Amino acid sequence: MAIAYPHFFGSDKLTAEVALMGPTPSLPPVILTQDELKKIAAYKAVEFVQSGMVLGLGTGSTAKHAVDRIGQLLIQGKLKNIIGIPTSKKTHEQAVSLGIPLSDLDSHPVVDLAIDGADEVDPYMNLVKGRGGSLLREKMIESACKKFVVIVDESKLVQHLGGSGLAMPVEIVPFCWKFSAQRLELLFKESGCVAKLRTYSENGEPFVTDNGNYIIDLYLKKDIGDLKAASDAILRLPGVVEHGMFLGMATTVIVAGELGVRVKSK
Amino acid sequence: MAIAYPHFFGSDKLTAEVALMGPTPSLPPVILTQDELKKIAAYKAVEFVQSGMVLGLGTGSTAKHAVDRIGQLLIQGKLKNIIGIPTSKKTHEQAVSLGIPLSDLDSHPVVDLAIDGADEVDPYMNLVKGRGGSLLREKMIESACKKFVVIVDESKLVQHLGGSGLAMPVEIVPFCWKFSAQRLELLFKESGCVAKLRTYSENGEPFVTDNGNYIIDLYLKKDIGDLKAASDAILRLPGVVEHGMFLGMATTVIVAGELGVRVKSK
Repeated sequence: MAIAYPHFFGSDKLTAEVALMGPTPSLPPVILTQDELKKIAAYKAVEFVQSGMVLGLGTGSTAKHAVDRIGQLLIQGKLKNIIGIPTSKKTHEQAVSLGIPLSDLDSHPVVDLAIDGADEVDPYMNLVKGRGGSLLREKMIESACKKFVVIVDESKLVQHLGGSGLAMPVEIVPFCWKFSAQRLELLFKESGCVAKLRTYSENGEPFVTDNGNYIIDLYLKKDIGDLKAASDAILRLPGVVEHGMFLGMATTVIVAGELGVRVKSK
Repeated sequence: MAIAYPHFFGSDKLTAEVALMGPTPSLPPVILTQDELKKIAAYKAVEFVQSGMVLGLGTGSTAKHAVDRIGQLLIQGKLKNIIGIPTSKKTHEQAVSLGIPLSDLDSHPVVDLAIDGADEVDPYMNLVKGRGGSLLREKMIESACKKFVVIVDESKLVQHLGGSGLAMPVEIVPFCWKFSAQRLELLFKESGCVAKLRTYSENGEPFVTDNGNYIIDLYLKKDIGDLKAASDAILRLPGVVEHGMFLGMATTVIVAGELGVRVKSK
């Protein structure tokens, strides 16, 4: 199988490669939807789960498949004694409906494994997360993990964070949000940053996170350069609660694409 | 007049010195209460205020005197066209009752001058603030100021931040606060840090900030060393919203003591 994303995997970085549905001459090619690709990555990630683990349960359309799969394996008796730590109220509800036993970081401050999606993945396995709005709880839980498996379809691979042209979210306190948005925009002025308050499409009201905060979405025209410096600069702004860059946290990235599933590990 | 706090002022750092009530042989010495000292510092700070200014209005027992004084001067017509930006709901109410016209950072992102108290002041004019619980709004507003005048009585001077043995506050999201407290304690383990959730004395319930968050009070047995590094380390913890160290922000510190008022400027 050809290496489909050389900038992401590189030949020496590739630690595992699984061809799920390589084209065969005798069969017509199967066109998979983006959601099917997400499901493939999610199911692959759940292979890392073992009975007795404390598990961080991610949020979003890809992570949802992983949580469904864990629930399925529990019902089938193939997994036992799992404790789930949900990363959002939404995932909490999903896990409850599946009968997954739940706890929180206060009771289980060490998490064996977390599985979650991402909005962007760069070649160094740095992530942008939080387009779904759960970046803070996700970061709290995923920073407490021994292993953090990220599951994406190939559309999420970028050369540099912000490179998709889509939002890089920053959670801020509602107090004087316009002021915070201005300061964020100014911080990345040289990268052509535009900062927008996230709103509900139905009514135009500000989107409110599980923690009662707002989200400022940053749109960047150019690479912001040193990510650690950018992270500290954002966090130093009073009014900022957290941002969606997850740097050096992922231990494994699973990418599902038309040509198969690839696994990259630290 | 003798220099009462050589470690704070030093001879070359002293830019102004005002003896208000130096002991005279003919009169018995006047013993001032701590509140009277606070008032003296506050009134001195208000001398920096000019008509037409956008003013950050601090929170706490010392700042309260400054806000009262500004209201008084407005009524007397000695100050005109002041716009106040209150740093807490409490100060907002006080300013409204005094008839001070108010605005916010969204409308006035540049503040001419802020006057506020502090819980600790080190020899480099770094501060600990937030024992009153308003650290986040104070930091937002005071980081947007051209000039930031800090008013304290002499009991607030310390050799190093945390040196009073009293609380260094950190505002955190309520979600998994025990986990955040543990991580904060671990961060300053070598300084003998003990982290405690702030509660209301009446009912033991968690103290809730104006932003709907909790406060973890850090008690430190030893100097934490590099303050900028400590600041970044705290801010990098997911779940932390802001901390009470105000580094390099004060442009003037006014200290009221038994021997008079001293003014130190950058």
